[in-house]
Amino acid sequence: MRYKLLLEYDGSAFFGWQRQKENISVQEVLENALTVALRHAVVLSVCGRTDTGVHATGQVAHFDTPTEVDCFRLTGSLNALVRPHPVAVKEIVPVADTFDARFSARQRTYVYKIQNTVYPPVLRAGRVAHVPWLLDEKKMHKTGQMLLGKHDFSTFRASGCQAKSPVKTLDELCVWREGEMVYVRVRARSFLYHQVRNMVGTLMLVGSDAWSEADFKRAFEACDRTQGGPTAPAEGLYFTEVLY
Amino acid sequence: MRYKLLLEYDGSAFFGWQRQKENISVQEVLENALTVALRHAVVLSVCGRTDTGVHATGQVAHFDTPTEVDCFRLTGSLNALVRPHPVAVKEIVPVADTFDARFSARQRTYVYKIQNTVYPPVLRAGRVAHVPWLLDEKKMHKTGQMLLGKHDFSTFRASGCQAKSPVKTLDELCVWREGEMVYVRVRARSFLYHQVRNMVGTLMLVGSDAWSEADFKRAFEACDRTQGGPTAPAEGLYFTEVLY
Repeated sequence: MRYKLLLEYDGSAFFGWQRQKENISVQEVLENALTVALRHAVVLSVCGRTDTGVHATGQVAHFDTPTEVDCFRLTGSLNALVRPHPVAVKEIVPVADTFDARFSARQRTYVYKIQNTVYPPVLRAGRVAHVPWLLDEKKMHKTGQMLLGKHDFSTFRASGCQAKSPVKTLDELCVWREGEMVYVRVRARSFLYHQVRNMVGTLMLVGSDAWSEADFKRAFEACDRTQGGPTAPAEGLYFTEVLY
Repeated sequence: MRYKLLLEYDGSAFFGWQRQKENISVQEVLENALTVALRHAVVLSVCGRTDTGVHATGQVAHFDTPTEVDCFRLTGSLNALVRPHPVAVKEIVPVADTFDARFSARQRTYVYKIQNTVYPPVLRAGRVAHVPWLLDEKKMHKTGQMLLGKHDFSTFRASGCQAKSPVKTLDELCVWREGEMVYVRVRARSFLYHQVRNMVGTLMLVGSDAWSEADFKRAFEACDRTQGGPTAPAEGLYFTEVLY
């Protein structure tokens, strides 16, 4: 039997998703809880291996177990077993054996949150990036539209990226303001390593009027990471939704 | 010269607003920062002395100083000096000598935040109350409307309240849902001690179908705290706005 998990976690408390020898990871905490609850070793396959500091409100993973489980009761057990680590199992549903949390994913959505205030974040500390000068979110949105569609995203690809090709298709990029907060939402089948944070960091240069739209276009078309802007901090990034 | 401060703080890090001998308070952290910045002892007068755990996004205080200050620079200095305590000065503005943060306030607004999910809060931990069964926010709103206007609020008045009279005028009570979150907003010239948390805790009984609207009415009209529901947790409460 295969089951799909819908997950929320506070990325600031973990060294990313992936299990490591020395440092605590979301995968380790959840696999340990599952192993206790199901009384057999469990391995989780995940949709997106988030980095240290990156949050999730809609991460998806799957696991296999020989027996049928009561999804509602298992959800409650896991949420008790993972304490005090800041991760929650929002839902567990049975899926077909052909379902794969990573390879069946058709669309991944990330939201990047920026607190755009002179004063630093307090109630949102660790949950948002902070930009103390005024961002022009409309200019960021307009400039970002050139990224839509199929392109070589090398300018926004971190070294260490294991993707075979730098060509990806971006399906949505929206930048909008709600009071003192600026949000960037992006959606694609998949992303290169650090692609979202590098796109957002470069768009921030445009929103700060350090770069013009033409500067951004030149950097993007150079297909060269050294021409792009800085990597936006992990604490502003949320993995919010997967479509299968 | 008198100056008005607009403040945000994370209530979970303080033993309330008011300065105490043993425990850290918002007042102590801010007065110490002001004393360093202005090089003389400063006493803050506050609009609402929030309890331990209660947050603020729009708290207001005032202080006097013999010399004129550069408000923008002082804001920056204070935000540096208060670190690492989770309090931010959002704005400083000069006000007339007749202005009093507490006594000039005409309307105070609080928002209560409830995460209404089977699973516990993770990214919002310490920032919301948690109700794991489904709340009927429409029934809470409808029932709450009987509190509007001038009434004896003894049913929602905590022991230790220093107000002369239990009669207050409630100007707004709104309950609404945004996805998995339920919000309660209340507005009045002033509130009794724990009035907001006691009203919300009692409305939660109604929203949980433990109480009918008639039960709520009977408790309210009894003017007796022992007839009311429990005090909702401090971590869901935000002091959001003051009108002068």
